[in-house]
Amino acid sequence: MVKNEILDRIEATAIPSVKKCAVAYSGGLDSTLGIELLRRVYKANEIVPITVDVGQGQEEIDLSNRRAKQLGIEPRLIDAREEFSEEWLKKAIKANSDYMGYPVSTSMTRQLIAGRIASVAEQLGCDSILEGSTGRGNDQYRMHNVFKMFAPELQILVPIRDFDLTRSEELDLCRLWDVPVEEVISGGDDKTLWCRSIASGAVALNQEIPDETWMWLVPPEKSPDRFERISVRFEQGIPDSLNGQKLPLVELIGRLNVLAGEHGVGGIDIFEDGIMDLKSREIYEAPAATLILKLKKDLEAQCLTKEEREFKTMVDAKWAFLVYHGQWYHPLKAELDAFIERSQKVVTGTVTAKLYKGNVEIVRRDRPDSSLFYPEIRSITAGSDGGSFDQRWCSDAAKVRGLPFEILARRERKMKKEAT
Amino acid sequence: MVKNEILDRIEATAIPSVKKCAVAYSGGLDSTLGIELLRRVYKANEIVPITVDVGQGQEEIDLSNRRAKQLGIEPRLIDAREEFSEEWLKKAIKANSDYMGYPVSTSMTRQLIAGRIASVAEQLGCDSILEGSTGRGNDQYRMHNVFKMFAPELQILVPIRDFDLTRSEELDLCRLWDVPVEEVISGGDDKTLWCRSIASGAVALNQEIPDETWMWLVPPEKSPDRFERISVRFEQGIPDSLNGQKLPLVELIGRLNVLAGEHGVGGIDIFEDGIMDLKSREIYEAPAATLILKLKKDLEAQCLTKEEREFKTMVDAKWAFLVYHGQWYHPLKAELDAFIERSQKVVTGTVTAKLYKGNVEIVRRDRPDSSLFYPEIRSITAGSDGGSFDQRWCSDAAKVRGLPFEILARRERKMKKEAT
Amino acid sequence: MVKNEILDRIEATAIPSVKKCAVAYSGGLDSTLGIELLRRVYKANEIVPITVDVGQGQEEIDLSNRRAKQLGIEPRLIDAREEFSEEWLKKAIKANSDYMGYPVSTSMTRQLIAGRIASVAEQLGCDSILEGSTGRGNDQYRMHNVFKMFAPELQILVPIRDFDLTRSEELDLCRLWDVPVEEVISGGDDKTLWCRSIASGAVALNQEIPDETWMWLVPPEKSPDRFERISVRFEQGIPDSLNGQKLPLVELIGRLNVLAGEHGVGGIDIFEDGIMDLKSREIYEAPAATLILKLKKDLEAQCLTKEEREFKTMVDAKWAFLVYHGQWYHPLKAELDAFIERSQKVVTGTVTAKLYKGNVEIVRRDRPDSSLFYPEIRSITAGSDGGSFDQRWCSDAAKVRGLPFEILARRERKMKKEAT
Amino acid sequence: MVKNEILDRIEATAIPSVKKCAVAYSGGLDSTLGIELLRRVYKANEIVPITVDVGQGQEEIDLSNRRAKQLGIEPRLIDAREEFSEEWLKKAIKANSDYMGYPVSTSMTRQLIAGRIASVAEQLGCDSILEGSTGRGNDQYRMHNVFKMFAPELQILVPIRDFDLTRSEELDLCRLWDVPVEEVISGGDDKTLWCRSIASGAVALNQEIPDETWMWLVPPEKSPDRFERISVRFEQGIPDSLNGQKLPLVELIGRLNVLAGEHGVGGIDIFEDGIMDLKSREIYEAPAATLILKLKKDLEAQCLTKEEREFKTMVDAKWAFLVYHGQWYHPLKAELDAFIERSQKVVTGTVTAKLYKGNVEIVRRDRPDSSLFYPEIRSITAGSDGGSFDQRWCSDAAKVRGLPFEILARRERKMKKEAT
Repeated sequence: MVKNEILDRIEATAIPSVKKCAVAYSGGLDSTLGIELLRRVYKANEIVPITVDVGQGQEEIDLSNRRAKQLGIEPRLIDAREEFSEEWLKKAIKANSDYMGYPVSTSMTRQLIAGRIASVAEQLGCDSILEGSTGRGNDQYRMHNVFKMFAPELQILVPIRDFDLTRSEELDLCRLWDVPVEEVISGGDDKTLWCRSIASGAVALNQEIPDETWMWLVPPEKSPDRFERISVRFEQGIPDSLNGQKLPLVELIGRLNVLAGEHGVGGIDIFEDGIMDLKSREIYEAPAATLILKLKKDLEAQCLTKEEREFKTMVDAKWAFLVYHGQWYHPLKAELDAFIERSQKVVTGTVTAKLYKGNVEIVRRDRPDSSLFYPEIRSITAGSDGGSFDQRWCSDAAKVRGLPFEILARRERKMKKEAT
Repeated sequence: MVKNEILDRIEATAIPSVKKCAVAYSGGLDSTLGIELLRRVYKANEIVPITVDVGQGQEEIDLSNRRAKQLGIEPRLIDAREEFSEEWLKKAIKANSDYMGYPVSTSMTRQLIAGRIASVAEQLGCDSILEGSTGRGNDQYRMHNVFKMFAPELQILVPIRDFDLTRSEELDLCRLWDVPVEEVISGGDDKTLWCRSIASGAVALNQEIPDETWMWLVPPEKSPDRFERISVRFEQGIPDSLNGQKLPLVELIGRLNVLAGEHGVGGIDIFEDGIMDLKSREIYEAPAATLILKLKKDLEAQCLTKEEREFKTMVDAKWAFLVYHGQWYHPLKAELDAFIERSQKVVTGTVTAKLYKGNVEIVRRDRPDSSLFYPEIRSITAGSDGGSFDQRWCSDAAKVRGLPFEILARRERKMKKEAT
Repeated sequence: MVKNEILDRIEATAIPSVKKCAVAYSGGLDSTLGIELLRRVYKANEIVPITVDVGQGQEEIDLSNRRAKQLGIEPRLIDAREEFSEEWLKKAIKANSDYMGYPVSTSMTRQLIAGRIASVAEQLGCDSILEGSTGRGNDQYRMHNVFKMFAPELQILVPIRDFDLTRSEELDLCRLWDVPVEEVISGGDDKTLWCRSIASGAVALNQEIPDETWMWLVPPEKSPDRFERISVRFEQGIPDSLNGQKLPLVELIGRLNVLAGEHGVGGIDIFEDGIMDLKSREIYEAPAATLILKLKKDLEAQCLTKEEREFKTMVDAKWAFLVYHGQWYHPLKAELDAFIERSQKVVTGTVTAKLYKGNVEIVRRDRPDSSLFYPEIRSITAGSDGGSFDQRWCSDAAKVRGLPFEILARRERKMKKEAT
Repeated sequence: MVKNEILDRIEATAIPSVKKCAVAYSGGLDSTLGIELLRRVYKANEIVPITVDVGQGQEEIDLSNRRAKQLGIEPRLIDAREEFSEEWLKKAIKANSDYMGYPVSTSMTRQLIAGRIASVAEQLGCDSILEGSTGRGNDQYRMHNVFKMFAPELQILVPIRDFDLTRSEELDLCRLWDVPVEEVISGGDDKTLWCRSIASGAVALNQEIPDETWMWLVPPEKSPDRFERISVRFEQGIPDSLNGQKLPLVELIGRLNVLAGEHGVGGIDIFEDGIMDLKSREIYEAPAATLILKLKKDLEAQCLTKEEREFKTMVDAKWAFLVYHGQWYHPLKAELDAFIERSQKVVTGTVTAKLYKGNVEIVRRDRPDSSLFYPEIRSITAGSDGGSFDQRWCSDAAKVRGLPFEILARRERKMKKEAT
């Protein structure tokens, strides 16, 4: 009966005509059901399932394959791991990737996936694309924008949203239609190596997060009683060595997720203002991202001027805002990238920290060639010899700096006199 | 011989004529020496030492008094504790007080002190003011600006800077002239209840901070193995209760310095870009400030809109910049205050956190009347009944939002075609 | 036949049930047709037409009344002229009201009207509100937001948009149903005393604007060959006198529209990025606004500090953005108002200009008490006596200011050496 | 006697020891006197006068040569015209070059000159550089910064400032020492092809500017009664054709200075906040700059997205701020350039305007491939067929957009209830 209600609702919805449809297929509940809806409801002549590997892990790829077999489909697999790491993640790191406390991550992969699928869909002559977002979250907007950018003519199908399905209704339909849906795999489909999202948007205000939820994180109270010392080298803003050993970025992040996670680093619990300006409580775990960005910001603090730090804060915030809002391909984003890229030329050096029960304490900084830290000039104990600074200069410098206040004082007197 | 060199240098400096001079007197080395210089070098007819109590603690006031006796002076004591707490600290808390990681503090008290001294100096008919800053730091600028604002005609004497004295030369002079200078008191003269500065600007890049340096802080590794749960209530942006008990702000901060400090919270180790745009490594301890601002920002995240959060970040940054740069009395600062004040009307509510070895983990948030968190609207699991949101709306909303990308796609095609 | 097509389309649309409906009634085509649709299509039991007078002029009020009689309705007239002038316009002037070249105007009145109507609708127990916006412009969003703010439970009917009617289809329906629609009155319904909008969004790229389009403006080539001198006094940011004569704001603006318009001042022809991020070419005429804002900005340049000018530019831009985007009642807007209000305390003084064939040339500025212009300090010809500035101070000031560049130079050398 | 006073003052100043000194030599009063001071006061062993041609015009170069002969010196001539046009001016145009109404110009050339001179000085083994700035203006800071960047070890001599000379004292000294100083040439030494500065900082508040002051400008009232139509084509932000004729940038600007100047375009009369935060009234004439920037901004309004326009406004403002403040070589400036450069790729197209008595009225815009103006989508008259926009979409889009206001309304009710 419940099912009839659902089917009635679907029937009452205007169904666009679909001939050849590309599907963003991940093997998860939403896209699996999407395949079945294409067959039964949209009556598509041809279905082109596409899976994009952005580094979500072998477990998910395997599940996707298994389920595909059950569904009788053969998804194309697009390997976008290299692109994600080289073109997306590196930009994110340079931009200090931070939207209200969230190191933008899924925000990126959804757009990467959408772009790849739209391109293939257009090449193959599809007339439509189906994706599994609900109508309550941000991904629908992110994917829509990118679809429109890469394949503006194609029809976009978002059945979960457009048929107004809840998660339990989706499961009902799957059961009704005998669609295979095993239990969800660990980590859900919102995991990238940069940050894992936990039950996005569905966490109540004071709901506790059970320890087993975490994939990498050992909560501080349960993490080791001894600290671990790690050092990370950055080359033009990108971490390239861990404890002296050169590592490809993906591997370095992988190791740090384990290492920092073990020491209680990387739990995130925030209020996030979504694309529709609605607040949700979001829980993320991002041990590597938390650690890397903390060390990198310290290095930036050493190698960027005051003016750059001030302005880049604004540029970075705008960058994260755009990426979060599904505007990776927006021209402003490219301009911000140009700014950021230029700023990173000097962000080279090594920072060493102790990891201990959720703390990242920086204990050693080298002073790279690109450093702007010159204590020999400013030191409070040194005399004025040798260096290029004589504190007596500041006597007149203070006078010049104080001139506007002298004028403000004069004005105040005039205005007070006038008022009386 | 060394001493002769110093005296020669002083003699070679142009000495302004001084009749009646107000002194910002704290009992520390610099201002103590200043009194003696007024007598011996500036040959002042009359010396008016003034001590301003901004809550630096009884220890310092006592020292100041003892030394005054030795010097044969009777400083006026101005009690500015109430003003500091009500007019300065509250504004700082509302503004989330943060300059590059430093919860501006001494930046404020120096200006408060300067303003009070300048006013008194002018009332008493002084022709000059003496203060003990060196020429290597920020305070000279802060005090100069405020002096010029409140007493633009008075001569400003900054002997340590103007005679180019180093700290050891100061001590030499004191010994030569028999000026009493016992050991420095714990915490130095850069302490306020909001934040304590440790050896400002004189810390080398990789110098370790010995545990005994800290006044409130127990480093995470030595702090208790059991967490402590605390809850703070905010009323329009200002903390007014701790664990359910109403407390005056000063007392609440005092308790939190102890409590949070004990649990390893509040150590700060940053690169700071000073007023002269020179970098220094700065160490601060600020347990209460760290804790309060973290909880308050979480409350703001719940009660302010996305647009307010975005814009207030910029306003707060400018606020801290101005205050740090000695521009408390700048009209722009008053305008920022008006903005901030208005924004805090809704920042009322209670946040509960666990303190554990350096971690502040928020474990409970109430949902105050002023909250903008309405999960019932956005929840991913709920159906579209009852609430005021139907996910199907987003189908068209996404289309409208995607229009600019459709146009960008069209443009790109045109431009590509053109290029070929 | 065409009509049948329209009627079919209307029939195919889901019609919400409506009992008592408030109508934003202006007497124009859209709201007139709206009344008839309420009767014939929505089958409303009770219709409550409301006209809000925001100063659009007697001509429009008269038309509205005449048409109301023909329709057999008796609209309530709400006089909001005082509120518009005192609460809205004054804030706009203080904020230098400028969205991409457009001195926001209709953006305001639509929201004022929506707020008043929503309040009355709720008091009278209506279950719905009807307004006449199309789905191609900005007003639908502005009114929707305000309706939701003041009467969140009421159903919002926007028939022109929801039945997808074009202007010619609207006329067809009126003819079919014998609804009276005389010719449009001069100036259309997008006129306020602050700015008149001309065929909003419907002007092609290179379409010329015929002279008779203008209401106040005489194009420069046809305006008088002799200049006119006018002087405007501002009191805390608000113009209060013209040529020495105190005038209420509304009258002062009215006179300046005529005066400045006659001399060719106030034509605006811009690309405007609408709420949906789509560009349109917009033509406005705003002689008084153009003149007043130019003079006021000059006065601000004299009375605000450099830092205030820099920051207020950003605040003003955000203010105009919010108001344009239908967010007058957004809390951020109230916070910006608090900032702006505070900044205007010193914007008092008189500026005199020559109006000549489109030019506003400032020819005389008084130097009010609130001025920060102190040429006696900076003058290039004066000696260093008397004033409080000695150019020799700058020798050391320049050295201090140059320190960061010395450090940058050192870094560059190191990095070059390293690179070779 | 007056002279003795001056000589006494010079004698009383500490004179640094100078062996080989490079001089920024323009042939003007200040640098001419500088040469003589090097001989008589600094007692330099070797003087290396250097003139940098940045396009100030043959007249000035000739004067410089003539005077050099009289002084018995042979200045090196560095031709930096190409660099100025290609590296500086083009960046300025892309950045819409505007500091508080002033199209930064001398701000640039001083830094270009300083950089060239410092490089040569270092190559030639000089130990010092002399330049002729006063201590009342901005140039001293601009040149100092650049000297420190390019030749941090060299001593910087700024005699006019350091000996506290007024203009009339300079003339006294010249007469005393028989230094040739003919009348000042027209336009002074603050002219570039981009903008001419008139008596910088020395204009009193209500001093009138006599017609003969202008070099290019014919005041509107005296300019022709017939308009002139011109069209400018931009290629990636840079004007490259005038009325269909391709022209090198320098020539195009030269012609527009005459053309636009004749029609009364380009007079600028502003309050400018200098580097020392002091206000001055500044008069500039910049016909070509005024015209070019107006047309280019219109083209940007057509080709840049809303988000780019909003953000670039801030980037441009910062760019002009840095350049004005003598920070051309600051790393932040390079980052802003990277942003701006990227943004200009689409700023290609032709704009046509009528010049008439001070007015620049845009009368024709082409719609280039890079345009984002797509009226066919938004047009108010078109039906929803064909295009990719259906106004009915906005019904739901408005609901989604309105959600935050619904939440704000709920909050307000709760808070009101609470308050009662």
